[in-house]
Amino acid sequence: MEKRVGQTPTNLTTAQLTGPRIAFLLLACIAWIPLIFGTSLFHVSGLFKGGGAFPLSNPFSDLANHCESSQPITAAEFHERQRRLASTLHHLNASAFIAEPGASAHYFGNISTTTWKLSERPLLLVITPVLVNDNQIEAKVAILTPQFEATRAKMLPIPHDSVEYIEWPEERNPYEVAISALTIEDKVYLDESAPPSAPEIQELRQRKSDAEIELLKCANEATLLAIRAVHKKMTIGMKESEARRMMSMALKVAGLDNGGCLTLFGENAALPHGSGSDRVLGQSDFALFDCGGSLHGYVSDVTRTVALPKTKVPSEHQAIWSDVLSAQTVAARVAKAGAIAQDIDASARSFLNLTGRGAYFTHRLGHGIGLEGHEEPYIRGGSLDVIKIGHTFSNEPGIYIEGKVGVRLEDCFYINSDGQSIFLTEGIGGQALSPWDP
Amino acid sequence: MEKRVGQTPTNLTTAQLTGPRIAFLLLACIAWIPLIFGTSLFHVSGLFKGGGAFPLSNPFSDLANHCESSQPITAAEFHERQRRLASTLHHLNASAFIAEPGASAHYFGNISTTTWKLSERPLLLVITPVLVNDNQIEAKVAILTPQFEATRAKMLPIPHDSVEYIEWPEERNPYEVAISALTIEDKVYLDESAPPSAPEIQELRQRKSDAEIELLKCANEATLLAIRAVHKKMTIGMKESEARRMMSMALKVAGLDNGGCLTLFGENAALPHGSGSDRVLGQSDFALFDCGGSLHGYVSDVTRTVALPKTKVPSEHQAIWSDVLSAQTVAARVAKAGAIAQDIDASARSFLNLTGRGAYFTHRLGHGIGLEGHEEPYIRGGSLDVIKIGHTFSNEPGIYIEGKVGVRLEDCFYINSDGQSIFLTEGIGGQALSPWDP
Repeated sequence: MEKRVGQTPTNLTTAQLTGPRIAFLLLACIAWIPLIFGTSLFHVSGLFKGGGAFPLSNPFSDLANHCESSQPITAAEFHERQRRLASTLHHLNASAFIAEPGASAHYFGNISTTTWKLSERPLLLVITPVLVNDNQIEAKVAILTPQFEATRAKMLPIPHDSVEYIEWPEERNPYEVAISALTIEDKVYLDESAPPSAPEIQELRQRKSDAEIELLKCANEATLLAIRAVHKKMTIGMKESEARRMMSMALKVAGLDNGGCLTLFGENAALPHGSGSDRVLGQSDFALFDCGGSLHGYVSDVTRTVALPKTKVPSEHQAIWSDVLSAQTVAARVAKAGAIAQDIDASARSFLNLTGRGAYFTHRLGHGIGLEGHEEPYIRGGSLDVIKIGHTFSNEPGIYIEGKVGVRLEDCFYINSDGQSIFLTEGIGGQALSPWDP
Repeated sequence: MEKRVGQTPTNLTTAQLTGPRIAFLLLACIAWIPLIFGTSLFHVSGLFKGGGAFPLSNPFSDLANHCESSQPITAAEFHERQRRLASTLHHLNASAFIAEPGASAHYFGNISTTTWKLSERPLLLVITPVLVNDNQIEAKVAILTPQFEATRAKMLPIPHDSVEYIEWPEERNPYEVAISALTIEDKVYLDESAPPSAPEIQELRQRKSDAEIELLKCANEATLLAIRAVHKKMTIGMKESEARRMMSMALKVAGLDNGGCLTLFGENAALPHGSGSDRVLGQSDFALFDCGGSLHGYVSDVTRTVALPKTKVPSEHQAIWSDVLSAQTVAARVAKAGAIAQDIDASARSFLNLTGRGAYFTHRLGHGIGLEGHEEPYIRGGSLDVIKIGHTFSNEPGIYIEGKVGVRLEDCFYINSDGQSIFLTEGIGGQALSPWDP
């Protein structure tokens, strides 16, 4: 339901309201909505003090259009991805790369699990290298489709001039059909996340182009702006579910798809992925928001642990918050092209060990991010992955003391062409300044 | 939104409405809902001629409570599943069965992807056979959990008296941690759907107990009742999206979780999994509904192709409908314990070949059904799987002529203790009688 509330302004303007009688009816309507739909929408709308009477104005309208000018990845960039994959396969003496709908098929062929739902009947993207003019490698793109779904498969918006469709009937083995149709003889690489995988192929999607970085920046900025906007509308005494609904609304208005937030108050935040208990925000509680959404397929991931102007934060909790921010800063300084993943993780961990809180930093520092919310490489102990230009990661230290308090701060960063790490949220100020200034 | 509309009766009774003034306000509210939420709810509510003024009565209230007395699988049945798995592993000289959240972990340990979301960090159910009293095999149940998620993992409702929790820290390989903690040395079987799989283990979940059959019966009956109820409320000129919303509402009222229907009018139904184009129902169109929902984890799958009292069905389309029904009947007669899957598929296909329409039956006849909507074994050409007591399948022939018409009829059946096939919808009449009497 929250998704629709965000659309209100486009449907209802003050010009449509011609007098106090209609306004009265409208208010009566709002009062009924919780009865009709069994929600606490009225309660939530009552929280939008700063935004005027709901639904006459949208409390998050400032967020609209932040990413309006963002463009999806162009066909030319898809062609370049396919060409580079074909070259890499040729170099590896491999005859094909095969992926089912998912991040890799999305990256090379614009086929996500949204455009084609996974099932037990494989639909596969098959890219093979072809030698043209004796020395140039081009990509041949084929789709293996269930025969009875061929018409629907041909509607997939695959950025390639001459996609070949190979149809497998229900009584045949689809893989045998593909291998025989494509005369595949040599090595085949499956979707990069599945073994056997080649580092050369994994790297194609891990290292982002400028266009990808731009989309990731806008998605992450919009997410942080949404958190800041909701933070301004929060009140002591509100429930986790109400704040979560406000966040969904704000992310929607900000133009992100599939937006949502882990929303945890007080000691509920001490379980890093806890689902909470619809706890009420108390006078001395932090509120933790871990939010994400997607923009033309590229996802965001931002966490803020906030306090309200009237919150009385225990000094111990304030100290924890500051330590987490410092740990994030330390890691950001260590992260650069050539650094080893485990050393970046260790830098934040060592700092927290110095403050005596290292034992409460229970998870890895970060993960890759792009078409997937969590993707390779990871920034964790034990990883010898080398950080490279174009890599994008989360940097998200946290302290979790069960039954008491949880604090996490997360901004994602990329490695620019100079090899430096830059927060994707840098354009709107980057890291949090305090629990009151996220 | 449709999910909430289904809850109306529990929130709002006529007793709460004390006079015409409030009724007027309420009507005013209903009129506003489309403006506020940007939906065509009012339009849809206007279709419920037979159900009285919305929301004073729920048009599908007859469906409520059809499965009210259904009980989830008991702890005793889970214990028995674990014990049988342990015995099977012992018999296979294997030391463990390992599954991530999904249908198998649900079957053996009550861990579904709803209770634990899949991620790149494995949480695994590990069941190992233990010899007690020299000759009795018992199941040891362990959970491998990310260390920082251990508190949350311990909240999982696993039906076993002494679950062991093995925690893997972020910097370790989780599989190495599991193997060392459990001293696993011999063969290990991964989730039955992944190789290497043993037919003996696959069979445990494929063949249903009486309690499972009861849940599948009620889920499938409720789904068919929902289709029949919506069919009575349909009108020429309505949109696919409106009918789809009514179906979701009806399935919700009928007590099913995650209910939904593929809803295709006219020639849109000629793409078996087509997403439609929000086409309007015309004077001579069939409407195809392929619906499912779940009851205590067990899912339904029912398809009906219907016409309205005023529909003028072309005689060719009527003939197709009748042929599909006959094909379903033929297959139902062939299906029994001991039959071979490919022969059941062939029986329906041969019949349609005789009528000259075989080429338009483009997909397999059916699939297994249980905790998964589609699961092994499948009823398709090329399958030598033997049908056994306790198996449950869909029986869903269809005829698809692109650009013109699509007809599919689907009822699921089980093999009873006498080895006969019985439709899961038998208790409410089973197969469709005509396009007007689904």
